[in-house]
Amino acid sequence: MSRAFNFNAGPAALPESVLLKAQKELLNFNGTGMSVMELSHRSKEYEEVHNGAISLLRKLLNIPDDYEVLFLQGGASLQFSMVPLNLLTEGKTGYYVLSGSWSEKALKEAKKVGKTVVVASSKDDTYKYIPELNADDIKEDAAYLHITSNNTIYGTQWKSFPDVDVPLIADMSSDILCRPLDINKFGLIYAGAQKNLGPSGVTVVIVKKSLVSESLDHLPTMLNYQTYIKNNSLYNTPPTLAIYLLKLVLEWVESEGGLEVLEKRNNEKAKILYDVIDESNGFYQGHAREDSRSNMNVTFTLPDQEKSAEFLKLAKENGFVGLNGHRSVGGCRASIYNAVPVEHVEKLAQFMKSFKNR
Amino acid sequence: MSRAFNFNAGPAALPESVLLKAQKELLNFNGTGMSVMELSHRSKEYEEVHNGAISLLRKLLNIPDDYEVLFLQGGASLQFSMVPLNLLTEGKTGYYVLSGSWSEKALKEAKKVGKTVVVASSKDDTYKYIPELNADDIKEDAAYLHITSNNTIYGTQWKSFPDVDVPLIADMSSDILCRPLDINKFGLIYAGAQKNLGPSGVTVVIVKKSLVSESLDHLPTMLNYQTYIKNNSLYNTPPTLAIYLLKLVLEWVESEGGLEVLEKRNNEKAKILYDVIDESNGFYQGHAREDSRSNMNVTFTLPDQEKSAEFLKLAKENGFVGLNGHRSVGGCRASIYNAVPVEHVEKLAQFMKSFKNR
Repeated sequence: MSRAFNFNAGPAALPESVLLKAQKELLNFNGTGMSVMELSHRSKEYEEVHNGAISLLRKLLNIPDDYEVLFLQGGASLQFSMVPLNLLTEGKTGYYVLSGSWSEKALKEAKKVGKTVVVASSKDDTYKYIPELNADDIKEDAAYLHITSNNTIYGTQWKSFPDVDVPLIADMSSDILCRPLDINKFGLIYAGAQKNLGPSGVTVVIVKKSLVSESLDHLPTMLNYQTYIKNNSLYNTPPTLAIYLLKLVLEWVESEGGLEVLEKRNNEKAKILYDVIDESNGFYQGHAREDSRSNMNVTFTLPDQEKSAEFLKLAKENGFVGLNGHRSVGGCRASIYNAVPVEHVEKLAQFMKSFKNR
Repeated sequence: MSRAFNFNAGPAALPESVLLKAQKELLNFNGTGMSVMELSHRSKEYEEVHNGAISLLRKLLNIPDDYEVLFLQGGASLQFSMVPLNLLTEGKTGYYVLSGSWSEKALKEAKKVGKTVVVASSKDDTYKYIPELNADDIKEDAAYLHITSNNTIYGTQWKSFPDVDVPLIADMSSDILCRPLDINKFGLIYAGAQKNLGPSGVTVVIVKKSLVSESLDHLPTMLNYQTYIKNNSLYNTPPTLAIYLLKLVLEWVESEGGLEVLEKRNNEKAKILYDVIDESNGFYQGHAREDSRSNMNVTFTLPDQEKSAEFLKLAKENGFVGLNGHRSVGGCRASIYNAVPVEHVEKLAQFMKSFKNR
């Protein structure tokens, strides 16, 4: 059986070589006679996996020493609460940029914790673009500025990150590792794994140590970043299998040549599809404004609902998976994360062209 | 390579047939051409896994219709906070039985939320037994009574559950599915998966619906049980791979004959080891008092530290994994969860006898 043409928005395609390696050693990890998921999280063998994943992420993203790499559970959805619970202290304000539904959810959770301000938004234009930010609007009471680096539903992405004097917090769930980053620009980055990092069930947090140094013992222990920092993310049993798979994905990223290579490839993959859209004489309409186009999620509509339905039906029959757009936007979406091969993107481009020409 | 003699306390041994099935379909789940971890959590294929796991757990534990089965993340450690955040309302008191370190941690988190009372404890006697509970000590202000059904570190286990007029909350992380249960006795049961249920990374909650019907919108969305109830545990991306493996483990439990069969086998396995201890003329000393002995974790010490170290070293050389006792008790611990084969327990018993006779 050949691999499906998987354009799922997340959980999403993983590198075939990662799956093959996981399959090969599933019953016998590293000569232990046990599966990696049967190892104690306090064992030497597991600690090598755990610390190996941290080191590799540090290397690939060039993470400075004054930042911690943490593994948590609960996805970005739990981070929506943990960020304000840890950072939005009395008298401070959390500044939010609304660039999509996930930003809105992050804001909703922050409002339960403290004072918030929406400093920029493209909501009124169905989130077609990344709104422009006026750094002067961020006042001295700011605890942080929160952004969503890539918006899966709308297919938009920040091309460069704002220069601000307050800690910049970014939800990078859907585009972490799609390109190199200057970590120093950020106070805290969080990402659910299920797009570019691995399977669902582990959340990566990269945080500047000085940002979370205050004692917050009143918080639930599991919602306090310090718990994870003090215990190397081993306060309780971590999701060991998910972290192992994350490590395999990071090894794959390294073997492909690192983030510069992936960024180039991602831009090429995205261009293949955007070119089909732009050269279709309006048959395919991109949802995102050109300057905000994502290289991870390509969103588009067809002339009418009927054509869309026909396209999706035929695409499915031709083995393309996950092309339905999110219900809030409609139309179609092709998610082309790191692990989606160029060849699959080319197949989709061909299919789009031939569908148009029918 | 043959399977290790895995006596890890958790993450722990899983059934070999489960691992073989997971291995076989790791790159192609159910003819999809995708790994189960590459499926969208909104797809028909994944929903069958998700709902199949819920149905099977309902069947095996005979869970009544007025209870919900939920999948969460964060382990028992997050439940320590979620239970009081959802149930310990203003003016109420959380009653706790202390039977080990995990009970203490649960109490610690509840104290951050509201009023608590320790209604019974065996702490002064290094948690050698399950303390006796006087139901009259639980007053009308009780929000609930919290117990830990099995104490991995000390090797003790509740043999029957208390009859009380308030919601009984049980942390069953280390012995759920070791025996049949009368779910009606409980208000809420929670369990991290990494002992009898599957890999780490998913937490099962079984809760009586009427107990969590009050609106609690001020809570972080991800800490509100209602979020999981309203969305069939699909509010955000669940840990799909861990839930899939949980389903395979549940299928294995069913194929073995269900919980009556497993209870009988677990008692037999435990008896093999306790007999070696009891017939060793004091060479091996059980930590747990006889009436509180666990059928999941057998804890014992040797005449002195030196002998213990020698035993553990030789055991390791003979392929036994995970026999070190927890640092707070010392000595040795054999965790014999559902998936540990009788033959491995017999091997260990033989080893213990021959070590004594050297």
